[in-house]
This record gives sequence, structure tokens and C-alpha cells, in this order.
Amino acid sequence: MPVENIANITVVGTGLIGGSIGLGLREAGFTGHIKGVARRQATLDTALARGCIDEGHTDLAAACAGADLIVLASPVSAILETLPKLAVLGGGQPLITDAGSTKRTIVETAERVLPEPGRFVGAHPMAGAEKTGPAVARANLFADMPVILTATDRTDPQAQQTVEQFWQMLGMRIVHMTASDADHAAARISHVPHAVAVLLFDMAQRLGGLDVSSTGFADVTRIASGDADLWADIFTENSDSIVDVLDELEQTIAAFRKGVASGDRAALREQLDRVKQKRDAWLAQHLPHRA
Amino acid sequence: MPVENIANITVVGTGLIGGSIGLGLREAGFTGHIKGVARRQATLDTALARGCIDEGHTDLAAACAGADLIVLASPVSAILETLPKLAVLGGGQPLITDAGSTKRTIVETAERVLPEPGRFVGAHPMAGAEKTGPAVARANLFADMPVILTATDRTDPQAQQTVEQFWQMLGMRIVHMTASDADHAAARISHVPHAVAVLLFDMAQRLGGLDVSSTGFADVTRIASGDADLWADIFTENSDSIVDVLDELEQTIAAFRKGVASGDRAALREQLDRVKQKRDAWLAQHLPHRA
Repeated sequence: MPVENIANITVVGTGLIGGSIGLGLREAGFTGHIKGVARRQATLDTALARGCIDEGHTDLAAACAGADLIVLASPVSAILETLPKLAVLGGGQPLITDAGSTKRTIVETAERVLPEPGRFVGAHPMAGAEKTGPAVARANLFADMPVILTATDRTDPQAQQTVEQFWQMLGMRIVHMTASDADHAAARISHVPHAVAVLLFDMAQRLGGLDVSSTGFADVTRIASGDADLWADIFTENSDSIVDVLDELEQTIAAFRKGVASGDRAALREQLDRVKQKRDAWLAQHLPHRA
Repeated sequence: MPVENIANITVVGTGLIGGSIGLGLREAGFTGHIKGVARRQATLDTALARGCIDEGHTDLAAACAGADLIVLASPVSAILETLPKLAVLGGGQPLITDAGSTKRTIVETAERVLPEPGRFVGAHPMAGAEKTGPAVARANLFADMPVILTATDRTDPQAQQTVEQFWQMLGMRIVHMTASDADHAAARISHVPHAVAVLLFDMAQRLGGLDVSSTGFADVTRIASGDADLWADIFTENSDSIVDVLDELEQTIAAFRKGVASGDRAALREQLDRVKQKRDAWLAQHLPHRA
């Protein structure tokens, strides 16, 4: 089914991500029906009030009845719990994509339990914020941001194309990777940076310094205010990639420590300037509104 | 001299920090005369055009003639070069404070070379941005931010009080520390976080991941776009505190790595939630407009 024939979308999890998907779809001109699923009625009420969804359910089966596309937008552990339930819903098998922050276990589980594994296309949209819930959802959360799609050799090409078009409707730039590569990339540019933000704050809190901390420290630790449950899932599900990247980081820090201890100002300046130039160029290319 | 009797202020270095001091003084109702010193005339022209200073000089002696208070607002190495020149200016010895990002070498040098060391009060205002120059100066850069003052037993109490009042005029919250404690605190909440931002970007650039990086990664690495010369000074001048804090960080990362490798979700969740709660409380107290 091409994306323009999709009339009914069900978003499982109507928090920041799911709510922003609903708002983004409307902003993009989607005229079909959007159902949302959440555990708590209060979450659905906020999502409804903000126009993220047209119809809210606490029951998964009721929300998924008649769906052409199901988007799993809850934390990783909840997605893993939902997949087997989707397998036994009955009716025509819809397209399924997800927004989970780790991909290997989700893709493996989806392909193992779903009756039509070819109609599942894993996705990791690289967008978010440290606040959660539909109250902070916004239509442009995904605009111009990358989304990693993790199709496998079992994925139906038509399903893949439609899911690509779905994320493109939200303004995202498609990047294809294996689930394993996606998890390693995410460890490097999201999960370990998150850990470091947490650990820097933890260290200042334990050893002193918070009373003289300012905006730079607030920025570098911003993501440490992320939801603890969401991130506990990530650090559990992607532990081997995260451990690998923590090892990369340890070596990188050790080399830098050596440079600082040696007092070689010229070499330090060269490294700092090289990184600054590359970061400025990256920002100008990928996030021009922040450059 | 109490702060209300100060009529002539000279700012040495009219970049982001010096320029913002000038704009902040005007915003606070300072009606005296502000002279600025910079190496390049173009910098002075921008500072003059933006109203950061009333009068610009490339010559230090001309700029400091008649000053009641001199504020050294250049990178650390330039401050260290300026101090001996101030010693030989002649005339009445003005009050001197600085905005350098490390304190031990500056305080030691000031007390060694200045004819009236008691009239120097070292300061580390915790405010800044990754961009430089008077074009990005702003009147509220220092508002509600902490400033560390590093008076010694040689500091004249009246000089200390006036310098306190000066930084308070800019809206800053005064924190007293020894120069050594100030450098260690700065290493923990500014210098090492800066290093980590640089190293995380460097790692993603070397090993892959930049093509799927997004706003969270941009925030955590924002300070890596800081000026290379300024930061090379800091990593050279504060190397021993920075090495100590890099060791603290290494131990903190190693403990976290162990937790991730063990897959103990409950313990990870507890740590993440504890840090989130403490960071949210810190932000609400110290940077409420960002909470």
C-alpha cells in the first residue's frame, strides 16, 4: 500500500514521540484518522486536547482494529511487550514501524513473533527532548532530523518504501543501516553522550562544583534530565554496544589526558581547533538553524 | 573607593566577555566612562558601534590612564602578559580584577608583579558562549550567574568589597574560594566537561555516527565549538586540576561501565533517576528560566 492510500494510523504510546508524530502528520497534511494508545487515560486526554490523535484507547486491540499502519512509539521495553500482542490481534496484518531507541532486540522480536515479518520496518528517529509526555509534543520535532531504518532481507520492499515515505512525511532524512550498526551508531552519538552527561552531573554533585555551575554545564548535562525508565531500557538493551563505545571513550580520554599532562599547548590547540572546525561544518550542514 | 565613586573603567579585551561587561554596566545604570583595549582596531570598532565601550585603544597605557578600575577580560595567556605591563604604567594604582578562566597562575603573577598586590582581586565569572567577539556580546550575559572571587590574605578588604560590588552590578552571585579550589571546581564543571564535549565529537567524527547525529548530540557537544586559543590556554594553565578530574571521570565511567555490563536494570534506573531529580532541582534553583 503506497503511503497516500493509508487512511488509518495507530500510534502506540502517545508521549512526546507519539504525540509529535500525530501533530507532524497533521502539519504534513495527513487527512486520515489517527488513533492513540496509552496506559493512562490522562495521557490520552492530553493527546486528544492537543490534537495529537483523533481517538484514544487504553485497549491495544480496539486501537489497532482497522489500522493500515501501526507506529510503536513507547520506550523499548514496552515495544518489546507490545509486539507479541500485535501478533494475535487477527484481521489483516497492517504495516508496522517503531521509534525505539535500540534496534536489535526489537527487530529480532518483531521478525520472530509477527505473522508477517516482512511488513515490519524498524526505525530509530533521531529526535527527542529531555521532557516527556504529550504536553510537550510538537509538530516539527522530526523536521530535518535523521531517521535510521533497519530493513532486513526479510523486509517486503513495498513495506519498506511506504515506511520510508511515512517518516519522510514528518520531514525526516532517511539513513539505512543494519540493526546492529544502528545500535552502535546510537551508542556513539546518543547513548554514551547521555551516560557522560549523567556522570558529569553525578560527579559534580558528589565531589562539589554545582554551586558555581552555569549555562555551559547546564547544556552539556541537559540530556541527563531524560526519563529514567526510558534510559534504563536503553542501557540494558544496548549494553554491548554501549560497553564497546565506553571503551573507545576511555582510550580517547586517556590520550587527551596524556596531552594535557605533557603541557604541549600547540598540540592541544591543534586538536581543539580541528574539532571546532569540523563541528561548525557539521552543524552548518545538518542543523543550520543552530549554527 | 566604594563602587559608586568609580567613574572610569578600562576593559582590557573587548570580546564576548569584555563587550558584555560594557553592555551590562550600561544596563545596570553605570554613568561613568568605559575605555576598551584590543589588539585589533576592527574589534574596537565593533565594540564601539555596539555601545560596549565609549573609547577604544590599541595601546594599553593610553587606555589605562586615569582608570579607577581595570578589568582584564582577555584569554588567560593574554592576561598573564598584561599584568607586568600594568605594573610599570605609573600613576595612581587602580583596582584590578579579571575574568580569566583559571586562577592560580593569574593570582600568583598579579601578587608577584603588581606594585600594590592588595588592589588586585581575581575573579572567574561563570558565563560565556561558544561564539567570540564583541558582535555577540550581550548585556545580560552575567545576570544571575555565579562569579568566583579569589581574594588572598594579601587582598585589601576595601578593594575586595568594591570588586564584589562591581560583579554584583552585573547581576552576578558572589562565591568566595581560594584560587586553587576555584581551579579545581572549574576543572570539574567547565574544563573537563569541555574536554568531554570535544572528545565525544572527535570520536564520532573519527569512528562514525555524525550523519545520524541530531539535537541532543549538538547540545552535548555545543561547547566544543569554543575558541581553540582560549581553551588551549586553559588546558595548559590548569593542567594538574584537569588531570585530577579526568582521573575522577575515568573512575566514574569505569563504575558505570560495570553496571551496564552487568545488565542490572534496577540499579541503572536508580542512578539515572537520582541524577535526573538532582539536576532538575539544581536547574530550578540556579537557572530557573531553563527548568
